[in-house]
Amino acid sequence: MEHLGATLTRIYPGCVHIELPRRPEVTQQHGYFHAGATSAIADSAGGYAAFTLFPPDSSVLTVEYKINLLAPAEGDYLEAIGTVLKSGRTLTVCQLEVVAVEGDRRTSIATGQQTLIQIVSRPER
Amino acid sequence: MEHLGATLTRIYPGCVHIELPRRPEVTQQHGYFHAGATSAIADSAGGYAAFTLFPPDSSVLTVEYKINLLAPAEGDYLEAIGTVLKSGRTLTVCQLEVVAVEGDRRTSIATGQQTLIQIVSRPER
Amino acid sequence: MEHLGATLTRIYPGCVHIELPRRPEVTQQHGYFHAGATSAIADSAGGYAAFTLFPPDSSVLTVEYKINLLAPAEGDYLEAIGTVLKSGRTLTVCQLEVVAVEGDRRTSIATGQQTLIQIVSRPER
Amino acid sequence: MEHLGATLTRIYPGCVHIELPRRPEVTQQHGYFHAGATSAIADSAGGYAAFTLFPPDSSVLTVEYKINLLAPAEGDYLEAIGTVLKSGRTLTVCQLEVVAVEGDRRTSIATGQQTLIQIVSRPER
Repeated sequence: MEHLGATLTRIYPGCVHIELPRRPEVTQQHGYFHAGATSAIADSAGGYAAFTLFPPDSSVLTVEYKINLLAPAEGDYLEAIGTVLKSGRTLTVCQLEVVAVEGDRRTSIATGQQTLIQIVSRPER
Repeated sequence: MEHLGATLTRIYPGCVHIELPRRPEVTQQHGYFHAGATSAIADSAGGYAAFTLFPPDSSVLTVEYKINLLAPAEGDYLEAIGTVLKSGRTLTVCQLEVVAVEGDRRTSIATGQQTLIQIVSRPER
Repeated sequence: MEHLGATLTRIYPGCVHIELPRRPEVTQQHGYFHAGATSAIADSAGGYAAFTLFPPDSSVLTVEYKINLLAPAEGDYLEAIGTVLKSGRTLTVCQLEVVAVEGDRRTSIATGQQTLIQIVSRPER
Repeated sequence: MEHLGATLTRIYPGCVHIELPRRPEVTQQHGYFHAGATSAIADSAGGYAAFTLFPPDSSVLTVEYKINLLAPAEGDYLEAIGTVLKSGRTLTVCQLEVVAVEGDRRTSIATGQQTLIQIVSRPER
């Protein structure tokens, strides 16, 4: 996330927003954001969203996700929104959305669905 | 791809390999490759694999993909393998695999499935 | 659909509801609806939803879908809701949801995402 | 499965085949197998394949699957093949394939990827 230059901008229980400003490192020759960057912030937003509902001393791993790329990722910045759809004891399912923001215009550029697993850390002694 | 430091290492009709060496920019604090890097090279390997079967003057876009993360992405380098399962007139379906290589040991760390669309470029006049 | 005993209950532009009442043919020994029935009505709801936005003389095919099964499919009937997220010239992306209804209680039992392709029928002469 | 008329034809450790003969109940007006039937046997083949590697007193649930429909499901019978790609303590990942068989000809009509969870049954007393 730091390497990409992305930042968490909103953290609610079960919902996290991540913003990624346009920078040469995450864009192609035509100025579009890389699909890899789009997917990475979507995956992270879902991971953090799941994590907000977990007990302390636990961590989260992405089991799998599926993402549809809907439109060219063009804009001043991308906003990824991860929302928990179902929070189970072991598994959590999140909805992922990525919006490209250019001035006042918001365009949905990707939509996804993600499964995560809660890892309970055993205390180290 | 260049930003990540990845290179195409094998190009066959319908199958492309991409390698990503371990570098600080694509690894976490624990030395694992980022899930975002894993997904990015998997998506690219499938895209290039589809492209090998396309006519000249066409290009390729990822419609969607789904990826399961199977094991921690730990090793000297990652190798992503994209293989065309079905090449249609409009749509292509690829299988994606990512292997972590440490010395002689190869561990499958991700497996995926991808749908791509062929974009026929109209000649510019 | 007829074989399953399912019926279209609501048809809006870009959104279709399908209901499947509990019957021995679509339930297991424990009274739960089969996962196959859940997926079938979800896939159909998305297909019809996409179709509502298509021009006459066209038809629709499911390219792929992904579905998460969230809870046991238990109730008087299942309701599948297909909603178009993005309607393109060639491809359409739908969100799928299946709810189990028991009296007043509605439980989300499955959520999915689907890609469809519009097939333009050429007139037969 | 019984309702569809499908039968398990091969059971290996980590791999199961299911066959579904053409019958009016699982085909459309044009003689193609329903997408719902294709998906149902693919999901079941993966579930049984995962189950072959589980300890006694455990059961299996599909967490999610993704399936690409590659070609019309036309033939004397469909054969679904579920193969375990990764068998973990909690989660199992399977590859799914469905082949349509017409005489000597075998056509791959669907390919998928599935995540399953092992449920350990506590002994009832």
